[in-house]
Formats: sequence, structure tokens, C-alpha cells
Amino acid sequence: MRDFIIIGHKASTSSDFSLNDLPGSAGRMDILCRCINSAFFLSHDIRNDVQVHLLLLGEPEPGKIIRFNGENIKHLNPDERSSAALIKKALEKDAGESEIQSTPGVWIRQGSLETLINEFYNQGKTLAYLREGGDDIRTTAGSLNDAVFFLGDHIGVTEKEEEMIINAGAKLISVSPYSIHADHCILILNNELDRTLEK
Amino acid sequence: MRDFIIIGHKASTSSDFSLNDLPGSAGRMDILCRCINSAFFLSHDIRNDVQVHLLLLGEPEPGKIIRFNGENIKHLNPDERSSAALIKKALEKDAGESEIQSTPGVWIRQGSLETLINEFYNQGKTLAYLREGGDDIRTTAGSLNDAVFFLGDHIGVTEKEEEMIINAGAKLISVSPYSIHADHCILILNNELDRTLEK
Repeated sequence: MRDFIIIGHKASTSSDFSLNDLPGSAGRMDILCRCINSAFFLSHDIRNDVQVHLLLLGEPEPGKIIRFNGENIKHLNPDERSSAALIKKALEKDAGESEIQSTPGVWIRQGSLETLINEFYNQGKTLAYLREGGDDIRTTAGSLNDAVFFLGDHIGVTEKEEEMIINAGAKLISVSPYSIHADHCILILNNELDRTLEK
Repeated sequence: MRDFIIIGHKASTSSDFSLNDLPGSAGRMDILCRCINSAFFLSHDIRNDVQVHLLLLGEPEPGKIIRFNGENIKHLNPDERSSAALIKKALEKDAGESEIQSTPGVWIRQGSLETLINEFYNQGKTLAYLREGGDDIRTTAGSLNDAVFFLGDHIGVTEKEEEMIINAGAKLISVSPYSIHADHCILILNNELDRTLEK
């Protein structure tokens, strides 16, 4: 399983946002929606070996995790509004520390970056942190097919978050000579890992 | 200049579509909007060496070309709705065979695939056609930095269109071991060409 964690620092933790204004009313939820698209979509298929964990840190209840699992997911179309509608449905649930399924393949719970790091660390998974100046994915892809990739939103990753991720042993990885959006990173990661598997 | 041509077989040629339903009311305009995002966006910048030509072949007036130029473009944000709003503004213009600017960096005119092929062919540009089974971009990127890339939408490229593109001498290029969306192809192309320029 390939896991992507995207930290949405301003992403709404209430379902009370407008699907007509994802960047504004929903705290740049558009970024997270594009990450869903990049992570899951093939031309006429959905990747069933991928999971996405959206960490929502915006108001009013910072600290919710929405998990999308490609094996079970339904009602997902490539457009931003489609992913946003599933996020909205998840946020309608009264989330506690245990996961609740909101729609097929989508679960929500309360949690933090620490929650996710600890869980994956304890599972012995390889952790990878996308950052400029990291090792080029082309030289490292072979060892990362089942890795957990950490990515930031428009704000990036804060110093404190970065420290937690690196302290957990995450490898630093880069995918482009330029600084690019999280959803673009995911796409290039998928392509690189696909190429490794095809060899 | 790097040029991307995307054929939108059902994409609306009237501004009379809803920004709240880009896949349905606008004939899969969401695909073209994601292509705009992939083509232009860096993390905190817009690529100024890129142009996108959207060929809209949907009703009511099939055969309109909207050109986005990264050097001049304004009011473009990464979300689908933002690109769609610029497309809608362009479609409000009464387009003839000569280009009219609708907003900074966006022009519209009447035209067909033949129009675009002939123009680029006469300019002596290298043409590249994205198709499964084409040469891997990794072995060909070096010669394609100023190329014109032809891509299809959810319908792909029809046999007749393919014949026209290939007859004009387009190289067949592939970017992934799988069949993937046009916007994903553009993203991988940009990454590959960026890497070539950085070498």
C-alpha cells in the first residue's frame, strides 16, 4: 500500500463550507481535492493500492483525519468538487478517536500529525518527506513502493512538523528541480513508482 | 515556448454553462481546467514559457480555440473554477477567425485542429502526440523543449484527428506505463523537460 499524508493547515474541520468556494470558505480545500485526484486516478481506473490521509487543521475543530482507500472508494470523480463533496460528507459525521465510515472507502476520526506518524512508525513503514533538496526520487524510488509520503499544503510544512517527521526517520525526497504543488508531487511520485514496478 | 494543445470534444462553445457543474453542463470542461493547472503552475509562480491551446468542439458552435499564454496571464488561480471562469469570459466574446483578447493572457478565435496543426507546422515546430506505445519521454525529452504537444480529453483522440496529427510528422510520445489523464501527462512532460533544462 502506498500512503500519502497531506497536511491542510487551514482546511475546514466543519462541513459548513461552500462547494462553490473551496479555496476561500473551505481553507484551501481545493489543494487537498487535487491531491485526491493525483493519488487515485488512472485514465479509466482508480488505483486500489493507494491510501490518502488528509490531516485537517483548520477551524472550528482542528485535528481531523480523513482517510481515502482506493480499494473501497465509491462516488469519486476526477473533478475537485467531487472529492470536496466526499470530504463534506465525512465532516458531517461526529468524529471521535475511532474511525467512522462516511461513504464507501472514506473514514473520518479525530487525530493529529503525531497520531499518523506514530501509527506508521509502529507498523515499521518507510517514511518519506517531500522537500526541496531531498534525494531525487529517481535514485530512491525502488525502495519506496510501500512508503508513506508526507506533504504540505500552500503553507508547506511548519518547522515543528518537519522536526517530528524527520525525528521519526523519514527520508527526504525531492521530485523536481523546482518547488511545486503537493498534488503535482504526488503525480510524479506515482509515475516514478509505476515505472519501478513495470521494470 | 512549450505549447500544449488539448482537444475537448464535448467542451462547451457557449459561455452559458454553470461553474458549479463543469463536468456536466460544460462538457467535461473540468478536464481542460486541470490541464491549465498542470501546464502553468509552479509552487509560487506561473510558467511564462508555456502556452495552452484549448480546442473546444462541443455545441453550440463547435470549433473555438482559446489560447492561454503564461507570460501575460492574470487572474489565474490553481482551482478548476478559476480557469473555468477565464474560459467562460473568453466564450462571452463574439469570436471570429482573428484572435480577440478576453482577459490578460487569454485569447479566443474560431478554428479547428487543422488550423492549429497548419500554423505550428508552418512555423517549423516539432510536433509531439501523446499516445500509449509512443517513445518514452525519458529518451526523447532533450529534443522536445520547444515542442507542441497534442493531447485528447476523456474521449481521447479520434482516428481522423490522429491521422492528421501523424501526417503532419508528429512524434509519438508516452509518459507512463499506464493510460493516464491528459492533465497528468502534461505534468509529467513538464517535469521531464524541467529536468532536461536543469542538467
